[in-house]
Amino acid sequence: VEFDLIRRFVEGLRSPRDPRVRVATGDDCAVLDAGPLAISIDMVVEDVHFRRAWLGPEEIGYRAAAAALSDLAAMAAEPVGLVASLALPPSDAGDYAVAVMRGVREAAVAAGATLLGGDVVRSREGLVVDLCVFGHAPEPVRRSGGRPGDELWVTGLLGGAAAAVAAWESGRTPEEALRRAFARPPLRAREARWLADHADVRALIDLSDGLAGDAGHIAAASGVGAVLDGAAVPVDAAATAFAGSAEAARQLALGGGEDYELLVAGRGIGAVAEAFRSSFGTALTRVGELVDGGGVRLRGADGGTRPLDVGGFSHFGTEDG
Amino acid sequence: VEFDLIRRFVEGLRSPRDPRVRVATGDDCAVLDAGPLAISIDMVVEDVHFRRAWLGPEEIGYRAAAAALSDLAAMAAEPVGLVASLALPPSDAGDYAVAVMRGVREAAVAAGATLLGGDVVRSREGLVVDLCVFGHAPEPVRRSGGRPGDELWVTGLLGGAAAAVAAWESGRTPEEALRRAFARPPLRAREARWLADHADVRALIDLSDGLAGDAGHIAAASGVGAVLDGAAVPVDAAATAFAGSAEAARQLALGGGEDYELLVAGRGIGAVAEAFRSSFGTALTRVGELVDGGGVRLRGADGGTRPLDVGGFSHFGTEDG
Repeated sequence: VEFDLIRRFVEGLRSPRDPRVRVATGDDCAVLDAGPLAISIDMVVEDVHFRRAWLGPEEIGYRAAAAALSDLAAMAAEPVGLVASLALPPSDAGDYAVAVMRGVREAAVAAGATLLGGDVVRSREGLVVDLCVFGHAPEPVRRSGGRPGDELWVTGLLGGAAAAVAAWESGRTPEEALRRAFARPPLRAREARWLADHADVRALIDLSDGLAGDAGHIAAASGVGAVLDGAAVPVDAAATAFAGSAEAARQLALGGGEDYELLVAGRGIGAVAEAFRSSFGTALTRVGELVDGGGVRLRGADGGTRPLDVGGFSHFGTEDG
Repeated sequence: VEFDLIRRFVEGLRSPRDPRVRVATGDDCAVLDAGPLAISIDMVVEDVHFRRAWLGPEEIGYRAAAAALSDLAAMAAEPVGLVASLALPPSDAGDYAVAVMRGVREAAVAAGATLLGGDVVRSREGLVVDLCVFGHAPEPVRRSGGRPGDELWVTGLLGGAAAAVAAWESGRTPEEALRRAFARPPLRAREARWLADHADVRALIDLSDGLAGDAGHIAAASGVGAVLDGAAVPVDAAATAFAGSAEAARQLALGGGEDYELLVAGRGIGAVAEAFRSSFGTALTRVGELVDGGGVRLRGADGGTRPLDVGGFSHFGTEDG
C-alpha cells in the first residue's frame, strides 16, 4: 500500500516531463540535473505545528509543501523538485494519506516543481510530514548581504495566519480569509526572482518567525541593525478585524510568524514596486531600513524608536546571534 | 535550543570544506553544486523501525544515515551531502538530540558527505529521524538494466541484522556481532562505484527488503526473472549460530532485509572479484543469475528450482509488479 500510494501520485506528475529530472521515482534515488541546487528540509508534526481539527488532509499536505518551498523563494531559487516523507498511523494509510500527498502535489505543481518521490512509513500515532525541496540557484540571495541604508520591503499582507491560530486556540472558528492564510501559504519564488532581477536585492528571507524576528535574522546575518516603521506594516484587514485594533493586529504581524511572505533588503526597490504590484497582483510595502548597529527597533508615530520585544519569536537573538 | 543544536554539529563539519558545498547551514537553504544529483529520502520512526532499548542515540543517528546513504550506493552515486530532520519530545531536546546528530554526522563523514543542515522540531512522543541524501551521479546505475544471463553478486555477509531483530523481539540480547550488523549498516558507495568502473554492471540495488525481495525488485524493473542458488547465499556466521541451522539462517538472509549490502547484476564480475575483495576486505559472492521470465526462484542442492515464498517481504510482487 505504502509504495503504491507514493507511486500513484508521482506517476501522475510525469507530464509535462522536466528534462532536468533524469530519474523520477521507481528506483533507489531520483536524479536531478539542474546545476547549483538550493536545498531545504522542513518537518511538521501533528498537534505541534497543526491540528487535524484545523485542516483537512489536502490542506495539511499543501501547507507543509508551501512552507518548505518558501525557503527556496527566500534564496531567489527556482523550484525544481521535492521529495516527501510521510509517517502516519495504519488507519490513515489509505485515502487520508492519498489526500495529504495530493495537497503536496498541488503545491509542487503550482510552484513549478516535480514531486520526485518519497517515503511513507507507519507511525504509532499522529502524522509527520517532512519535505525536502530543491531549487535551481545560480545566484542565491543570502540573508547576510544587507548593508546600512538598504530599504526593507515586504510582500503581501501579514498577520492572517497568526490570527487564524489565535482564533483556533481560543476555541473560535477563524473566518475564511484567516483560515486560508494559514492553510494555503503563498508561493513567492517567482516574485523573489523578479525582485532579484529588477532591483539591487542584497538580502532576502521568508517570514516564518514574524516580521520582527525575520528582520532580526537578516540584521544578525548581515551584521547590521534594522528599523521597522510600525505604521507601515501591511496588516491583513481580516486580521485587524479579528484582533480588534490596528495595534493588536500589528503585534500579530510583527511577532506571529508563518506568513511565508518575503522580506527584502536592497536598493532601488521603490522604482520597480508599481511594476511588481501590477505583475503579481501582490502588495509590496516599504517597512523600514537597515542601519548601523544591531538588533531590531520599531519606529513609532512620533519618530522615536524603541527596541522590539514582541512575543512569538523567542529564539530571536540566539538563533543567529 | 533546536537551532543551536543543529548549528553546533553542522559548524563542526565545515572543514575540510567541500568546494561543491556553496552554502552550508545558517541560511534558508544549503546550496550544492555537484552536477547530476541522486536524491533519496528515508524516514525512521521509534518503535516502528527501532527501539530505544536496542540502540543508543548515536547508533540511532548512525543507522538512519547509513540506511539513507545506502540508496546512493544503490545508484553508484558518490555521497556529497545530506540534510536531517529530527522530531523528538522536549525531554530529549538536549544531550539526546545532540547524540543522535553526532551519529548522523559520523556516518556522513565516513561516507564522504557533508551534513548540510536540517530541521529539529518537537514531537508529542517518540523520535522521528528523516534523512535526505545527495550524491554525485553522472552515470546512475538503475534497477532496470538487468538482462537474462547477467550474473547476480552480493557484497558482504547477510542475515545479521535480521538475526539481531529476531533476538530482541524474542526477549534475548543479540551477541555483539549481530547487534553491530543492525546498529551500523555498511557504507558501500565506494564499492558500488568500483564495481561499476571495473565490470559490466547492468543493475544495482541495496538490500533493504531481504535478498529475495530485492532480487525481485531488480527482476521486475528489468522485466526478467531471477534464480538464486540457496547454497551460495553468504550468511553471517553469527546469524547461523543464532538461527541454529544453515537453512534457518538462509531464511534470515533471503527474507530478513536491512543488511544494506549491494546486489549487482552484470557480466565480468567474476574476473574482478578477487581484486574487489582485496581492495575492500569485503566478501563478494555470486548468488545466482537473471533468466528469461519473471519472479524469483531458489535453486536447491538437487539443481531443481522452486518459487521463493519467503516471509518478510510482503510487498514483493506489488511494489514493482
